[in-house]
Amino acid sequence: MNNPFFKNHGPFKIVDLLKDQKLSDLENFSDDLVHDIGDLITAENGHLTFFHSKKYHLAALKTKASYCITLKNLKNYLPKNCKSICVDNVLVVLSKITSKFYPDSINDNFDNSVKKIEELKLNNNIQYGQNVLIGDNVKIGKNCSIGHNTIIEKNVKIGSNSSIGSNVIIRNTIVEDNVCILDGCVIGKKGFGFFPDKTKNLKYPHIGIVIIRENSEIGCGSTIDRGSMSNTVIGKNTYLDNQIHIAHNNKIGNNCIIAGQVGFAGSSSLGNNVVIGGQAGISGHLKIGNNVHIGGGSGVIKDITDNSKVMGYPSKNLRQFLKDNK
Amino acid sequence: MNNPFFKNHGPFKIVDLLKDQKLSDLENFSDDLVHDIGDLITAENGHLTFFHSKKYHLAALKTKASYCITLKNLKNYLPKNCKSICVDNVLVVLSKITSKFYPDSINDNFDNSVKKIEELKLNNNIQYGQNVLIGDNVKIGKNCSIGHNTIIEKNVKIGSNSSIGSNVIIRNTIVEDNVCILDGCVIGKKGFGFFPDKTKNLKYPHIGIVIIRENSEIGCGSTIDRGSMSNTVIGKNTYLDNQIHIAHNNKIGNNCIIAGQVGFAGSSSLGNNVVIGGQAGISGHLKIGNNVHIGGGSGVIKDITDNSKVMGYPSKNLRQFLKDNK
Amino acid sequence: MNNPFFKNHGPFKIVDLLKDQKLSDLENFSDDLVHDIGDLITAENGHLTFFHSKKYHLAALKTKASYCITLKNLKNYLPKNCKSICVDNVLVVLSKITSKFYPDSINDNFDNSVKKIEELKLNNNIQYGQNVLIGDNVKIGKNCSIGHNTIIEKNVKIGSNSSIGSNVIIRNTIVEDNVCILDGCVIGKKGFGFFPDKTKNLKYPHIGIVIIRENSEIGCGSTIDRGSMSNTVIGKNTYLDNQIHIAHNNKIGNNCIIAGQVGFAGSSSLGNNVVIGGQAGISGHLKIGNNVHIGGGSGVIKDITDNSKVMGYPSKNLRQFLKDNK
Repeated sequence: MNNPFFKNHGPFKIVDLLKDQKLSDLENFSDDLVHDIGDLITAENGHLTFFHSKKYHLAALKTKASYCITLKNLKNYLPKNCKSICVDNVLVVLSKITSKFYPDSINDNFDNSVKKIEELKLNNNIQYGQNVLIGDNVKIGKNCSIGHNTIIEKNVKIGSNSSIGSNVIIRNTIVEDNVCILDGCVIGKKGFGFFPDKTKNLKYPHIGIVIIRENSEIGCGSTIDRGSMSNTVIGKNTYLDNQIHIAHNNKIGNNCIIAGQVGFAGSSSLGNNVVIGGQAGISGHLKIGNNVHIGGGSGVIKDITDNSKVMGYPSKNLRQFLKDNK
Repeated sequence: MNNPFFKNHGPFKIVDLLKDQKLSDLENFSDDLVHDIGDLITAENGHLTFFHSKKYHLAALKTKASYCITLKNLKNYLPKNCKSICVDNVLVVLSKITSKFYPDSINDNFDNSVKKIEELKLNNNIQYGQNVLIGDNVKIGKNCSIGHNTIIEKNVKIGSNSSIGSNVIIRNTIVEDNVCILDGCVIGKKGFGFFPDKTKNLKYPHIGIVIIRENSEIGCGSTIDRGSMSNTVIGKNTYLDNQIHIAHNNKIGNNCIIAGQVGFAGSSSLGNNVVIGGQAGISGHLKIGNNVHIGGGSGVIKDITDNSKVMGYPSKNLRQFLKDNK
Repeated sequence: MNNPFFKNHGPFKIVDLLKDQKLSDLENFSDDLVHDIGDLITAENGHLTFFHSKKYHLAALKTKASYCITLKNLKNYLPKNCKSICVDNVLVVLSKITSKFYPDSINDNFDNSVKKIEELKLNNNIQYGQNVLIGDNVKIGKNCSIGHNTIIEKNVKIGSNSSIGSNVIIRNTIVEDNVCILDGCVIGKKGFGFFPDKTKNLKYPHIGIVIIRENSEIGCGSTIDRGSMSNTVIGKNTYLDNQIHIAHNNKIGNNCIIAGQVGFAGSSSLGNNVVIGGQAGISGHLKIGNNVHIGGGSGVIKDITDNSKVMGYPSKNLRQFLKDNK
């Protein structure tokens, strides 16, 4: 999978992965071993994938996965090398299977592997404040600075010359070189993903990570959630102001400038050189092009093509917005 | 009162409660003892209540309270068992009286009763991180998890199997079973309630608490203020995303889903199964029905009936919103 | 300068300040000493100022500064006592020069000068929680209260009877008497100011401070950035609710009431007695008058005159907004 941190607890037999499901058409391969899970594009031979909406049928045709959880009316899109497993709710079944492969991805309790940084005998010229805690599987590059009360939980890699503020919490994250993460951020926690259930919602495992590329800055009190089946990415030299929320799976490009209190709903992609004014909101699953300007307070609910300037709720062409509101 | 935590410093004589006020019509009962305060519905025999707006006249007719702070033009609604005390500003006088009964409800300085959790010899299989502080009158159920640097201030009850993140601050709150409170939340502090005064505002006492019902989740960096004269409630199996603000006295129903950066102004009620998109705002004193969907970015300034779908600022019927913005 | 905290590393010779620039017309005074920097109004004899837009020409005519970084087409506005230094990008050059005078203003890494408060032997009847850290050059008045895990970094002055919550971080700030700063605030960090560059943005030094005047209250999780060339100011008896963001250089008046999740983009001024509803946003460089009411969720992108009531995105006259949205 795309997460270098979570331990894969597989392989599992199909029959064990699906023991809660009806197995009517699995007689032939229910003892086969599944080695990992992935989406239609990244899953490989021996892996299991999922296909729940016709809009992904082109990717389905080419998948290299050996097994696919899908719907009856979609199974004929799959190639011969891929055995279909038809269920009623693809994402719920996927969620349960993912939890078996990556049980660590569903529990976001505090990290009890942490130790006081003084006990770790780090070299690399790292400056650190008081009461800093470091979890298992953490690597910190040279000349970094880590503020007071900050908790670098397990599964974090920080590049060189990066500055982490005070009261920051990070896990499941790769921070590249020359990044500044300011005070009070929470980065790498699971996203807001679950299947509603009237008694007790079913939480969706988040096996993606957060990647913050070089020269970026994340403002005070911001939250960046890790991805569910892919990663959440902040591009190079991209600056986020204070109190920004980046939900799971968003991909932000390079050289973007995002002002205070902006929020992203999840799974959208932003091109390079995008400028977003304060308090704007970006809905889920959108594609925002390169060089786009989004005015402060806008509500973006549609894709935006390259070089556009938009404003409004819902957002429209900036010139039109200004004309309509003279 | 509705708060099991604050100590009632009563009873007080009427004359002592009102010594800053003119007492023209109190000769007959100014030495009577008042045992507690409450609203028109919950106040009992021997208690004092308040009645400041004609829209509550039906509740006034039936109050069991023995004394009522009110306006001259409203006093005739009160039943015979309830003696009226007419003042110019009901809420300011109420605020001063409340402070006498519950002086602890107005001071939200840090809790200096806390001890390091290691010193408390808790059993119950509680997992805890480093630098956890626990105040007076705190009960924690079995199998709970409490993250690093978290402060459970005085007057908190946590049910079983609940997970509290790191850097969380809680006071005056009941958390039921199987609740997750993620990193950096501040829960149970006084609401944003005061009477403006040109020199120094008069802070309103907050004698309500926060109740978070079972199976709920509160996202990172959220703030939930305790109530003033009633409680702030988050229903069962209700999920809040990151950076949400729930002001004093709001009642959120069961099975609600509230996305990131949503804000509630105070004293509104939400039914069950309500879904709210990111960055929406809900004004004060509204009634939102069951099964309501509120689009992201909406500004809700009117009541919403059951089963409605709305969007916009101000919010309107979703179909109308989409039509108007084609 | 307007910052009592940052050390002035000057004086510098003009030739050293501008060694990266072409010095074509500086032969006559390139060895002159510059003692400080300031804006057109506050700079004095021996100081250097800047003038980058014709809209400041009246201030330019009267400046007392001895040197001015400006554009060729503006230099004739300057008085005889002020020698012009013409460059292509006034603000970029200013930024580099400011960094030389005040190198401490550009690095916002955690403060490694802090000590545990117990070690400081404070008197003054200060109540403090556990794990409180205090930096260099901090003064705390009598009867103050400082919560757990709070970090008062270097360059802070707190008046008497003020209450600082837990998990708060403050630097470069003057807090006057009787102020409440609630849990989780970050106050006095550099603003979101930089010059975009495709490889690595150039961060702008912030040599202003934050001033919070007497009797004010700042809600939980709020962020107030210090100014760049001037100060960020919160007026007397002004109350901010939770999760508010005040960017650099804003000046908020006295007796204002600002509800939750409001954001200010930077460099705006607000009069006295202004009331702002939740989630409203105020664009940059605006002048909002006295006694103005701004409805919740509004987006303010123009100046507002005294005594106005506005609402909407963009905001307009409240009566008009209600009429348009019947």
